[in-house]
Amino acid sequence: MYKVTFKFEDGGAVEAFAAEGENLLEVARKTNVAIDAPCSGNAACGKCKVKLLGGELDSQKTLHITDEEYAQGWRLSCVSHVIADVEIEVPDIASAYKSRMKVADLDSAKEIEIFEKTKADVAETGIDFENDMDVVRVTMDPPSLDDTMPDLERLIWNVRQVCGTEHVKVPFAVMKHMAETLREYHFDVQCVIRRRKNKVEVLDLLGPDEDVKMCGLAVDIGTTSVAALLVDMRTGEILSKASTGNGQIRYGADVINRIIEAVKPGGRQKLQDAIIKETLNPLIAQMCAAAKVKASRIYRMCVAGNTTMNHLLVGVFADPIRMEPYIPTFYETLNIHANDLGLHIFPHARVIMAPNIGSYVGGDITAGTFASCIWHKPTMSLFIDLGTNGELVFGNEEFMMSCACSAGPAFEGGDISCGMRATDGAIEACTIDKETMEPTLSIIGDEGQKAVGVCGSGIIDLMSELFRCGIINPKGKFIREGKRIRHDKYGMGSYVIVFKEDAASVKDVEINEVDIDNFMRAKGAIFSAIRVMLNSLDFTVDMIDDVYVAGGIGSGINMENAVNIGMFPDIPIEKYHYIGNSSLSGAYIMLLSNSAEYKVWEMSHNMTYLELSNEPTYMDEFVASCFLPHTDADLFPSLSFK
Amino acid sequence: MYKVTFKFEDGGAVEAFAAEGENLLEVARKTNVAIDAPCSGNAACGKCKVKLLGGELDSQKTLHITDEEYAQGWRLSCVSHVIADVEIEVPDIASAYKSRMKVADLDSAKEIEIFEKTKADVAETGIDFENDMDVVRVTMDPPSLDDTMPDLERLIWNVRQVCGTEHVKVPFAVMKHMAETLREYHFDVQCVIRRRKNKVEVLDLLGPDEDVKMCGLAVDIGTTSVAALLVDMRTGEILSKASTGNGQIRYGADVINRIIEAVKPGGRQKLQDAIIKETLNPLIAQMCAAAKVKASRIYRMCVAGNTTMNHLLVGVFADPIRMEPYIPTFYETLNIHANDLGLHIFPHARVIMAPNIGSYVGGDITAGTFASCIWHKPTMSLFIDLGTNGELVFGNEEFMMSCACSAGPAFEGGDISCGMRATDGAIEACTIDKETMEPTLSIIGDEGQKAVGVCGSGIIDLMSELFRCGIINPKGKFIREGKRIRHDKYGMGSYVIVFKEDAASVKDVEINEVDIDNFMRAKGAIFSAIRVMLNSLDFTVDMIDDVYVAGGIGSGINMENAVNIGMFPDIPIEKYHYIGNSSLSGAYIMLLSNSAEYKVWEMSHNMTYLELSNEPTYMDEFVASCFLPHTDADLFPSLSFK
Repeated sequence: MYKVTFKFEDGGAVEAFAAEGENLLEVARKTNVAIDAPCSGNAACGKCKVKLLGGELDSQKTLHITDEEYAQGWRLSCVSHVIADVEIEVPDIASAYKSRMKVADLDSAKEIEIFEKTKADVAETGIDFENDMDVVRVTMDPPSLDDTMPDLERLIWNVRQVCGTEHVKVPFAVMKHMAETLREYHFDVQCVIRRRKNKVEVLDLLGPDEDVKMCGLAVDIGTTSVAALLVDMRTGEILSKASTGNGQIRYGADVINRIIEAVKPGGRQKLQDAIIKETLNPLIAQMCAAAKVKASRIYRMCVAGNTTMNHLLVGVFADPIRMEPYIPTFYETLNIHANDLGLHIFPHARVIMAPNIGSYVGGDITAGTFASCIWHKPTMSLFIDLGTNGELVFGNEEFMMSCACSAGPAFEGGDISCGMRATDGAIEACTIDKETMEPTLSIIGDEGQKAVGVCGSGIIDLMSELFRCGIINPKGKFIREGKRIRHDKYGMGSYVIVFKEDAASVKDVEINEVDIDNFMRAKGAIFSAIRVMLNSLDFTVDMIDDVYVAGGIGSGINMENAVNIGMFPDIPIEKYHYIGNSSLSGAYIMLLSNSAEYKVWEMSHNMTYLELSNEPTYMDEFVASCFLPHTDADLFPSLSFK
Repeated sequence: MYKVTFKFEDGGAVEAFAAEGENLLEVARKTNVAIDAPCSGNAACGKCKVKLLGGELDSQKTLHITDEEYAQGWRLSCVSHVIADVEIEVPDIASAYKSRMKVADLDSAKEIEIFEKTKADVAETGIDFENDMDVVRVTMDPPSLDDTMPDLERLIWNVRQVCGTEHVKVPFAVMKHMAETLREYHFDVQCVIRRRKNKVEVLDLLGPDEDVKMCGLAVDIGTTSVAALLVDMRTGEILSKASTGNGQIRYGADVINRIIEAVKPGGRQKLQDAIIKETLNPLIAQMCAAAKVKASRIYRMCVAGNTTMNHLLVGVFADPIRMEPYIPTFYETLNIHANDLGLHIFPHARVIMAPNIGSYVGGDITAGTFASCIWHKPTMSLFIDLGTNGELVFGNEEFMMSCACSAGPAFEGGDISCGMRATDGAIEACTIDKETMEPTLSIIGDEGQKAVGVCGSGIIDLMSELFRCGIINPKGKFIREGKRIRHDKYGMGSYVIVFKEDAASVKDVEINEVDIDNFMRAKGAIFSAIRVMLNSLDFTVDMIDDVYVAGGIGSGINMENAVNIGMFPDIPIEKYHYIGNSSLSGAYIMLLSNSAEYKVWEMSHNMTYLELSNEPTYMDEFVASCFLPHTDADLFPSLSFK
């Protein structure tokens, strides 16, 4: 056995032991050292780069490591094998997805505005914001020698009087601590209850004077990112918002790799731990600390995630999702509580999951579609969710059709060498001067934040600007020269966005032809999916009244640029609406409203699903879309440059 | 820290570490070394005697240790303190309650006969033996590209068809393993289900060809002893019967001491562990092994225990039971499953508890009264349960009154120096030759089993015979001389039942005046309770039509002897019926029958409770009953000797 010491930029270190020849990424995984591996350790993405500080590794040089970098000690962990005691530096960037947990500053109202706006839009459809949670004061006569009714029967009898129903249930979890609590407060308590029709369930017993913040948690579990809102269940007020990377990222960037990892022995537990223990529980703790509430006061939780994320969250066998005939274990599930999953909130809190409607259209889309309100409009709307994959819903109050396209993780920074999530240090927007080719950047973070990489919205801008300035051609190849343009020995061109001296990165932040190619395939997948789906319904793009674009890919998308690169159809820009993280908005509203929960359920039953791979025209459409903007320029008549 | 080595008669040993001055019994407890301490470590019972083999203990000599014994190294653990490394021998007798787990040989039909008889008696009252458990075969179409319904929805849809109801629920625990199971058996499975009215809950999924033994477990949790039946839920057949000591015995012999221990920090968990982890789970494992069934096939469990045992089992705060106004946490509880308690049976198995009706009349009595069928008779019956305490129920089909008396643990061998549970080595019956004063014994166990001690039924015989032979006087003092009669230096008399050469014990098996005094108080408590309760209802003993005597105190009670010592009223012997462990019989029937479960619930609501301590005559009656047979000889006109 050899000793492997992982050192971190913050000065911390972790020690592990490895057998001769053991894979370094595996050693990191089993030691719970977070090293991103979006490609799941196939030497494809280059994200798992670490620096050898001492000792020796058996590690081949790959395309992702330059000679200079190799000489400095940089290695890809996924192709490195332990052959001696080693000291490894894990740069922050290698765990960028996981480590950048961020609790939003609620005073910067922009973050919150969009949720409030969605709530207002949903309210206009007639959905009410009643939920089944309530707090009632129950003041009992204490027992005496003449009144020896036991605590449980006494509590139930009194709750019956207060709530006016015969059907009162006290779950075992509450019964366990009832006797002490009732005595501590002299049989005068506040009961947190859940009402369903004429049934009341007592969830918690609290002191009579406590100002009970009855909280709820809405969570969007994306393949790459996780975002959550902590909410006051009575007022609907958002108490805290936070986001972080999905800790499962080290088991692969996409759902297929995650499922494959989950099927390995012990894998299901590992994947579940990665999302619950490593991601959600720390996130919840931070949000509660920020909002100054106890996590045990979170009595209801609503999750919107794609079908695979939902399966891995509850820890069920997910393999059938990826194998023909692509069968999920469940669309909807009703009887899950926080303690079933090991979530550190109120143990008996119900965990509501927005329903899936297929293996590749999940609760994130049903919740998101609900939030977009397209199900209530007579006019035709297109809903586009840019997550780690792209999903579309088209329809109106009468019908809705959904489809999913394999856009890959590019919109969230995956498959892009300089890509990253929309968090501190991410370039979220940019323009390029056509003459000088110098960029002007907008970087997420405080004043003076240096660039770490580029997030989805930034990449759209960058592609559009590089194309507009004639720096790249319709095939995405570099055709101009300049100090920011480079070609490596294989002839691959790249554009330096930020030189390393000015970046918070160990090397230049640059975008290369492989990245551009990856992104073109991603945007091509979206565009061709829109065309094929509309075509299957005998619709054309000019019949679309509104397009709702969702996704946590930055503070917004420059729609004009998205049209310019041929990602979205060339229709009037005012028809486009960016609605933010609609999965999270949807989960937020379902959390607050039982009617919304029901409506999403009803909607999910009425939504049809189009399997694009069964459509004969899809492949041709896709190939034609992998150009800037498209092989058929007539589809983009209003393009602002040619 | 000193090293403490505990050595056992079977050759095993356990090592522990103790701080200077630490109490030896405490060291044993925290090391999970079972040393009985019925008096809860108050130097009162003398049961925790161990032998010092090496090293030194700071240990005072007590009444329970003779000079000779002290010289040999015998010490009471509860008054011993560690002051050096020590080696301790723990004789089997010191853990007699816990260690003597016994799985009955079902071929010796007598053990089982009594349960079958009770079942037949109950059937005659009109109670049916339908329960909510069933197994149905569900054969589904496997999913295909044209039929992509998810597993959960597919299962529910198919169960709906098979069971003919819309309301089908699949709990999370089942959903977790559903996908693999359905595929393993090609979507053709047997479902173990629970039906309630028109609702069906799927409990388990099994292969189509498995011969499913759907089992249930009935358990009587006594303060001293635990007994259980493993049952085939479909046929009602008893597959295994076993009994053992309650592992909580080391925290005290009676419920009060247990509650006090449970209130100490961490105590509730310790007491719960002692009954579940140390007692029930090993018992279940042994029973399943004997019956050759998997513990995971136990889908329903029914527990009959006294109020305190029920509270400690589910791990709720029990202190209010012992403190005025004596309030239990619950009478009945409905929503407990095996995994809530950590029971090693099917995790989602419902744990049904026979309802309590007061702090001192619990589920053991409601279940036992149900089994006695007195609630169905027009004639007047008296039900007597001789457990660690004595409980009485008097009434008929129109009314029932219950009361509890502090008889103490004497009937189960507690508070008696040679006392033990009715298990191998226990003298369960005896006669004494009036001339020679030589005893003739009946010992539980195989041919050749030597005596270890005396169980409840044996003590009754012994008392009656000693009295009949004029060896003791009405006050329980020894008045004859002989080789079996001894007096110690304080003048305390005793009778040697078995000399140590012939016993499986480290010393003579003998009964002394303290034991006799303790037992007289126990039998006096029973007799006076009967008198006071009848008196409160304006009844006299000759108005009793039948007396049903229950309790696991041996294979039966010599009723004549019980009358002779003034324990039971002097009414015709043919009115007495020994009905065995009626708590267990009741639990067995509740397990098999939902109607029985309902009937016990209904009965418990209609039974009144008499608090004896509030009755002004009780104390005088009790004092008068603490003689052989009674101060008022006219109450025993037919006494077979005077």
